[in-house]
Amino acid sequence: MSPDFDRLRVVLVETRNPLNIGAAARAMSNFEFLRLRVVNPYEVAFREARSAVGGAPLLKAAEEFSTVANAVADCTLVVGTTAVQRRELQHPLRPLARGAPLIRKALASGRVALLFGSEKTGLSNDNLSHCHWLLHIPTRQQHLSMNLGQAVAVCLYEISRDVKRAPSKQEKLEKRATAGEVERISTILLEALHRSGYVKANAVASTEERVRRMVRRMGLSSEDAELWLGMFRQMLWKIKAEPASKK
Amino acid sequence: MSPDFDRLRVVLVETRNPLNIGAAARAMSNFEFLRLRVVNPYEVAFREARSAVGGAPLLKAAEEFSTVANAVADCTLVVGTTAVQRRELQHPLRPLARGAPLIRKALASGRVALLFGSEKTGLSNDNLSHCHWLLHIPTRQQHLSMNLGQAVAVCLYEISRDVKRAPSKQEKLEKRATAGEVERISTILLEALHRSGYVKANAVASTEERVRRMVRRMGLSSEDAELWLGMFRQMLWKIKAEPASKK
Repeated sequence: MSPDFDRLRVVLVETRNPLNIGAAARAMSNFEFLRLRVVNPYEVAFREARSAVGGAPLLKAAEEFSTVANAVADCTLVVGTTAVQRRELQHPLRPLARGAPLIRKALASGRVALLFGSEKTGLSNDNLSHCHWLLHIPTRQQHLSMNLGQAVAVCLYEISRDVKRAPSKQEKLEKRATAGEVERISTILLEALHRSGYVKANAVASTEERVRRMVRRMGLSSEDAELWLGMFRQMLWKIKAEPASKK
Repeated sequence: MSPDFDRLRVVLVETRNPLNIGAAARAMSNFEFLRLRVVNPYEVAFREARSAVGGAPLLKAAEEFSTVANAVADCTLVVGTTAVQRRELQHPLRPLARGAPLIRKALASGRVALLFGSEKTGLSNDNLSHCHWLLHIPTRQQHLSMNLGQAVAVCLYEISRDVKRAPSKQEKLEKRATAGEVERISTILLEALHRSGYVKANAVASTEERVRRMVRRMGLSSEDAELWLGMFRQMLWKIKAEPASKK
């Protein structure tokens, strides 16, 4: 197996149909991506898929999480999949053939999470706020939305497609910030903004999502992430400390 | 639709599972290949797939044949799909990425049949004898055989991969922040850091330089620059305002 492939996490979010979980697992096994994570799956579906005859070992080894934040915390790149034009997209959106090389490149130095939403609704805006960018499979206007298991198969096929021609590792590989580090920055920054009166009461959710996306667009290295975290912590401390010190 | 795509015939031979017929039809619809032929399908499976809720119109328009010979009679190129190494192959065998351009080329002037065998046994030697060459999807040794619906999806994805679809507006060029905007952000951020006690007296210059570089590494778009500026301004206002309001 390519050691890089072992760094991909296929993350199924709120999947409802056990057949789709099984199909995703099978495609993963075909293309040698063996690390599955599930977020808040429909319990019965996940149990059924896990115990299905011939169920892939990777299904039995799947890790279960209750939030997307936790499921992607150790990843340096988080990519969401979407059937385009279903919502106003706030993220960079790349067709699969252009996004796959970026995923391969990121896999050379860190873990990458590839998110697939539920069959009915796809990824929610909150799910998307954890993503650095979005991927879509070019399909025809009249029938954009693909079956989940087929979408997983096509994405993994493309990611493994040119593996022999993978970019050379001459480029210096800077260690990227993990999603967990990025999320900590977002949390501290958001608290500072709340306490500064930046977040309007009638726009809390949308502001939080926007700030999350902005922090992710910074494309932080692990080193810079630590520095930003320190700066925001200090500012937050000051913002919180002032009134108390006057008492 | 590309007129060429209309010349492809996806031919499912002796398919047993109605879900697989439905899945194949869905992938065909996604990628705009709308001509399905079935050879000697398991009768009940075909009826079920045809009448499934949301069944694609292309499934209802599917043509039924009793032999492969008849199903491919009007095609100028006949390509079989196979999970390699299951039998002694007498045909040229091409990986999908190399076979797809040949299929596209053939579609420019005539009909092409793309054959998929049954779930259990694939295409028989007799079926294969009608093929000009064979196509396989590169999968790992330990798990060569793909689910039928997923194999159809991956093949059709690759065949349509380099064909231009309506350009998505997502990749419009984002306006970058000017050096002036970036410098304004640095200045406000630095003032907030000074007033928060982040900048040590003996390291003013080096901290300022480091913060300037970090802000530049954010690689900001003009839009994001404005948002960051707003956030830092608000935090600075809060940091400065507290003591004053207590006087």
